[in-house]
Amino acid sequence: MVLTYLQNKLRVKNMDLVTGGAGFIGSHLVDALVAQGKSVRVLDNFSSGREEFLAHHNGTANVEIIRADLLDPESVKKAMQGIDTVHHLAANPDIRLGTEVTDTDLRQGTVATYNVLEAMRCEGVSCISFSSSSAIYGEASIMPTPETYGPVKPISLYGASKLASEALITAWCGTFGAKAWVHRFANIVGPRGTHGVIFDFIHKLKNDPTRLEVLGNGLQEKSYMSAEDCVRAMVHLVGNTSEDVNLYNLGTGDTCSVRRIAEIVVEESGLEGVSIEYTGGDRGWAGDVPKTSLDVEYLFSTGFVPEMQSEAAIRHTARALIDEIGL
Amino acid sequence: MVLTYLQNKLRVKNMDLVTGGAGFIGSHLVDALVAQGKSVRVLDNFSSGREEFLAHHNGTANVEIIRADLLDPESVKKAMQGIDTVHHLAANPDIRLGTEVTDTDLRQGTVATYNVLEAMRCEGVSCISFSSSSAIYGEASIMPTPETYGPVKPISLYGASKLASEALITAWCGTFGAKAWVHRFANIVGPRGTHGVIFDFIHKLKNDPTRLEVLGNGLQEKSYMSAEDCVRAMVHLVGNTSEDVNLYNLGTGDTCSVRRIAEIVVEESGLEGVSIEYTGGDRGWAGDVPKTSLDVEYLFSTGFVPEMQSEAAIRHTARALIDEIGL
Repeated sequence: MVLTYLQNKLRVKNMDLVTGGAGFIGSHLVDALVAQGKSVRVLDNFSSGREEFLAHHNGTANVEIIRADLLDPESVKKAMQGIDTVHHLAANPDIRLGTEVTDTDLRQGTVATYNVLEAMRCEGVSCISFSSSSAIYGEASIMPTPETYGPVKPISLYGASKLASEALITAWCGTFGAKAWVHRFANIVGPRGTHGVIFDFIHKLKNDPTRLEVLGNGLQEKSYMSAEDCVRAMVHLVGNTSEDVNLYNLGTGDTCSVRRIAEIVVEESGLEGVSIEYTGGDRGWAGDVPKTSLDVEYLFSTGFVPEMQSEAAIRHTARALIDEIGL
Repeated sequence: MVLTYLQNKLRVKNMDLVTGGAGFIGSHLVDALVAQGKSVRVLDNFSSGREEFLAHHNGTANVEIIRADLLDPESVKKAMQGIDTVHHLAANPDIRLGTEVTDTDLRQGTVATYNVLEAMRCEGVSCISFSSSSAIYGEASIMPTPETYGPVKPISLYGASKLASEALITAWCGTFGAKAWVHRFANIVGPRGTHGVIFDFIHKLKNDPTRLEVLGNGLQEKSYMSAEDCVRAMVHLVGNTSEDVNLYNLGTGDTCSVRRIAEIVVEESGLEGVSIEYTGGDRGWAGDVPKTSLDVEYLFSTGFVPEMQSEAAIRHTARALIDEIGL
């Protein structure tokens, strides 16, 4: 009995938990962690995650999948057992939804993050790597926007839930001794995307190959990063930084306009004579930030170099999603 | 019928709602608004608020009291009818509680603020004045700390809930067109205080007039402001600033140590030979910020001048609370 107890206490925990691990970015992160030799447990409610995103791990011993919701505290606590580091990516992926159902981001973002942190505290798990967002900056007056920018005033309910989650995480570090990596993502694009501008454009072209409607005037301009670069950066930071709270912008250092994205998607579609039409106005919807540009010098100072800049990431994504969705 | 409808639509709304209006700072704000000639509706669950704090308004037509909880959305929507501006002050007042019951601040802070904002949206109320806190800054590396400081990393669950509430408010401004005043309070002290260091010291001296135990080494040093100055500043900012989001530090520009507070309380107690004893360590409890100093130049630039600096506010509070609590 004593030996068993000691073995339990001394047991090397080498399993990582990925919440939202069957989702777009989450499944890329699972790939990256497995490639590092890690065992991974996935917790996903499959609301936007898909089994096929992890199908290539079927039959391997490295990936364990738990179908559960972060709003069920007992399931989260159970999933936390034997875990080393939690990569918390699960969230409502659709920023626009916040304008219609106003408690979506509060519940699936803020309260879900609280449940993750409380389960960590109860089960003695101390490390969390969190997917935050450039949406927390709102309409920043300084661009490119550094991590030190303030006051941050998110204008979307999604951005509010990401900032609320960051705050819960730093409070857990300050009060209970957790250790955190907070990644403020640019717009992440790539294979397996389930939402966002490129995904929408391809679906629109599939419905009507003669015209492409663009929300806003097309001058919206944002930082884009490939999902592959994004998860490489996350893994790099967790391995190479060691403050109590390690907070970094994740992006490529440049931007791309929505107008240019529309052109690239049309080019990659192979369709001829598509009429690109703009609905007008400086933003796609209430809560959309017309221009974001992330300062990523701090990330680059750690030795990380992205493989694709914004335009290359968009073209790569357009190709992959046209292949996945079909045209 | 048509006339009645028009009268309803054109009716001048001149009633302000104060959530937590029976509480420490809330009741001072009610006094200030009534002195301005406003009609005030108070929404309070009386968990820490007290009827006697508003007793001097009994029998007047200016103050209406609703006993309800912000976690009951229907009550909040009802209280919002006919309201011009919401002053949202209700919250868990005890920062230390967050270390014990970890969902207190999430529920009574973040979710309660969401309910206030959602009720505003449903009832067409657009203006909110919110009591945030210097606790959102955590252990800031720049002091005095300006509003532009970032990244903000609260270390208490109370601070996390205040930052989460700020984020919800700015999202409501950006998405639904609300207008907001966000006041980042220094430590507010004054008559009717129901918690905090001066309150605690007086209760300790009441229990044992020979010694005063101080949590930490006494070198903790913070900005203090009288409740009277605080509500004057709130009313001043709402009347004199007009951005979509008006975000200000509220404080006096100086600081006072816990050691000095202990000395002032003992002086004002009139007790002789009190032994002041320190438990040691740089902070009173996990989540306590050892030193805060707010940059209040932005507040002062609007023409506001506090009547009391930190030490004067503390002495004034010690006298008032010794009178209220008895020794």
